[in-house]
Amino acid sequence: MVFEKVLIANRGEIAVRIQRACKEMGIKTVAVHSVIDRDAMHVRLADESVCIGPASSNFSYMNMGAIISACELTGAQAVHPGFGFLSENANFAQAIQEHGITFIGPSPEHIRVMGDKVEAKKTALALGLRTVPGSEGEISNIEEAQSISHKIGYPVLIKATSGGGGRGMRVCYHPCELKELIENASTEAQACFGHSGVYIEKFLANPRHIEFQILGDNFRNVLCLGERDCSVQRRHQKIWEEALCPVLSTDQRQEMYTKVIHAMKQFGYQGLGTLEFLYENGQFYFIEMNTRVQVEHPITEMIYGLDLIRLQLHVAQGLPLPYTQDDLRPFGHAIECRINAEDPENFCPSPGKIGAYAAPGGPFVRIDSALFSGYTVPSNYDSLIAKLVVWGITREECISRLRRALNEYVISGINTLIPLHLRLCDEPDIQCGKYHIKWLEDYLKDKGS
Amino acid sequence: MVFEKVLIANRGEIAVRIQRACKEMGIKTVAVHSVIDRDAMHVRLADESVCIGPASSNFSYMNMGAIISACELTGAQAVHPGFGFLSENANFAQAIQEHGITFIGPSPEHIRVMGDKVEAKKTALALGLRTVPGSEGEISNIEEAQSISHKIGYPVLIKATSGGGGRGMRVCYHPCELKELIENASTEAQACFGHSGVYIEKFLANPRHIEFQILGDNFRNVLCLGERDCSVQRRHQKIWEEALCPVLSTDQRQEMYTKVIHAMKQFGYQGLGTLEFLYENGQFYFIEMNTRVQVEHPITEMIYGLDLIRLQLHVAQGLPLPYTQDDLRPFGHAIECRINAEDPENFCPSPGKIGAYAAPGGPFVRIDSALFSGYTVPSNYDSLIAKLVVWGITREECISRLRRALNEYVISGINTLIPLHLRLCDEPDIQCGKYHIKWLEDYLKDKGS
Repeated sequence: MVFEKVLIANRGEIAVRIQRACKEMGIKTVAVHSVIDRDAMHVRLADESVCIGPASSNFSYMNMGAIISACELTGAQAVHPGFGFLSENANFAQAIQEHGITFIGPSPEHIRVMGDKVEAKKTALALGLRTVPGSEGEISNIEEAQSISHKIGYPVLIKATSGGGGRGMRVCYHPCELKELIENASTEAQACFGHSGVYIEKFLANPRHIEFQILGDNFRNVLCLGERDCSVQRRHQKIWEEALCPVLSTDQRQEMYTKVIHAMKQFGYQGLGTLEFLYENGQFYFIEMNTRVQVEHPITEMIYGLDLIRLQLHVAQGLPLPYTQDDLRPFGHAIECRINAEDPENFCPSPGKIGAYAAPGGPFVRIDSALFSGYTVPSNYDSLIAKLVVWGITREECISRLRRALNEYVISGINTLIPLHLRLCDEPDIQCGKYHIKWLEDYLKDKGS
Repeated sequence: MVFEKVLIANRGEIAVRIQRACKEMGIKTVAVHSVIDRDAMHVRLADESVCIGPASSNFSYMNMGAIISACELTGAQAVHPGFGFLSENANFAQAIQEHGITFIGPSPEHIRVMGDKVEAKKTALALGLRTVPGSEGEISNIEEAQSISHKIGYPVLIKATSGGGGRGMRVCYHPCELKELIENASTEAQACFGHSGVYIEKFLANPRHIEFQILGDNFRNVLCLGERDCSVQRRHQKIWEEALCPVLSTDQRQEMYTKVIHAMKQFGYQGLGTLEFLYENGQFYFIEMNTRVQVEHPITEMIYGLDLIRLQLHVAQGLPLPYTQDDLRPFGHAIECRINAEDPENFCPSPGKIGAYAAPGGPFVRIDSALFSGYTVPSNYDSLIAKLVVWGITREECISRLRRALNEYVISGINTLIPLHLRLCDEPDIQCGKYHIKWLEDYLKDKGS
């Protein structure tokens, strides 16, 4: 089926990004928007737009009924969900399909499996991917804990099954400490959560977050479009992403590409997807799969010279992938900085009206945003307002260009993370790629931010 | 010599472009500016700036003394001339050097030779490059004209030596017409220019303008960075440029790269340079060489993944080229649209104050400009205010992306060529690459513009 009109069930930069791909393919676009977004760029650039509810996303961008009605009203043949909102909601994908509309993404079943953390890990294991080893659910006695810990190797992490935020959590480095630490954790869990159950997992001290971009068609062809290193995070939120990962060897890379492709072929996956792993001491541990386009997809596009949204639309139309794995050759290095409307010192949201706006330009600089001078960033949605993506023939050139582009970027009237990214460009650990998922928080603590 | 501070003897987008490369290399920049440009972007982005004279470029951007003084005042070790203004002035290059400052460009002697049209053609011939064949200077009698015309083959072009604008010019298709047409041309030349002398050249009916980008270092290494097709012109002014040329075969390309590299090695050329050719019926005819960076250099950068200004600074510091010809692999297709501040119907200059300004973004779109909202485009300088450069994996994808980006581009308050470029994207001749240097003027005549 050739799409003539696609509805984009999203807002902000990703809605604009998807419109761009549609326009380049000659596909008409329908924007949906909340009341507060009526003058947003994604509405201005669309061929048609439909208001689907009030500012609160629960009643607009998450409102399945209103979105399906908008499809029927406008005759859109397909829905692109973007990321966030309904993009990984299997019921939405199903409902869309039941209305005879194409959901641009994988099957509801694939979304459902990967959306359930326990199910996803089981599936990954069955597909030959390693996960963080540990007990299967709660441990029932100390002998079991000892046996498991011995098997997976110390240090191990003891975690309250009902826990969170570090409560009821202990790291055990030696068998002789195990009993006492389990008791401590249990007592704390009982006190904090009213339930004393704990489970055991291999402890990863300072892992990196490395994810693999895959794309499958309806004919069991699957490509692996390299990896991205997204270890620079704050409260599990990625801030700075790179492709390729600065510390992997070609052999490590190729081995993972092969594994991931094999797994996804077995799984019968169709569409764009990302397999996320923790990486420590040369080992990859699957943590989850995102069954949609990722915020950081542009860095992959820059090193491969591909338009992933275009390819996503291509396979959603039932067409076979136009490339084989052998056709793909990454070139150079790319980095994305997330420009959030946040105070760069304390990360407090900073919505408000943009005064002057001037995006950087020149060679190998890309801006994905929905900003313009006079636009008011609403407080109702995610704080991501722009992505600065830079390419360089080497990682060093890439960082120099990034610093230059960040210095050029003018967004007045609100706070953004630009000053933080400028500091990161000058950090020796960033410059030599020596970071992990706890690095940024440690760095911010050290610097008193 | 490692540059710590470079003075950029230019304005507008190319001054900003050069600053970007300097910043990425950690080099401090000095802007020079006329009185009217005091708030221009190239001044705002520079580390230091010096006012060098009034609005009229003869007394500012062309004012050698003022520019040399600015170097001495600021301690700049090198001058980048950009294009236009003093960039191909051998005396300027010489004067700069005599003050112990590095001129970022070839030697004064190379500039001088290629700046003289007659000298340039002679040199090219001696270096093994074909030029448009014809008489050496004025013809003295009909027998000489017949013999030359016979040798170069009909049709031939009869041109007044002192002529211009088509006056005193005739195309002769057959020997029997030659005498009469020479007499006509002579009479017209006498009437128009007070001098009846004419010369004869091979007539190229509908040639393309194809140019080869070269880069040499001080060690006789020369690279050829592919070609650009710049045939879409109006009054000899390029409007739309592509890399690579859509009609050459790989063999034709390789043969020319080899020839051009050989010629430039013989010539001992150092720095960036462009050899311009007319191309018709499978033959290339050298017309001139530009001994500086070209307006359309970004399309070459996009297909090679290189920063030409950075490389230009690199060789100007006396370093050897970091690549060999075998390292270079062009990938994909790139097109540049010149966004001039001109009425798209009649090409009348359209200076004035910019209201809203929003540059297109997203994948593989590059903007080189010095524009911002509230900036006043002065009437004193060239009308080129921005370059929209787009890359695609295929030429077709590139044109689709270009159309999308042109549609997004908002420059209010003045007229620009954006509407013309949008029309060109939809023209079948453009879409299939079937154009030549007279194509645009014919097209505009046909469409009544």
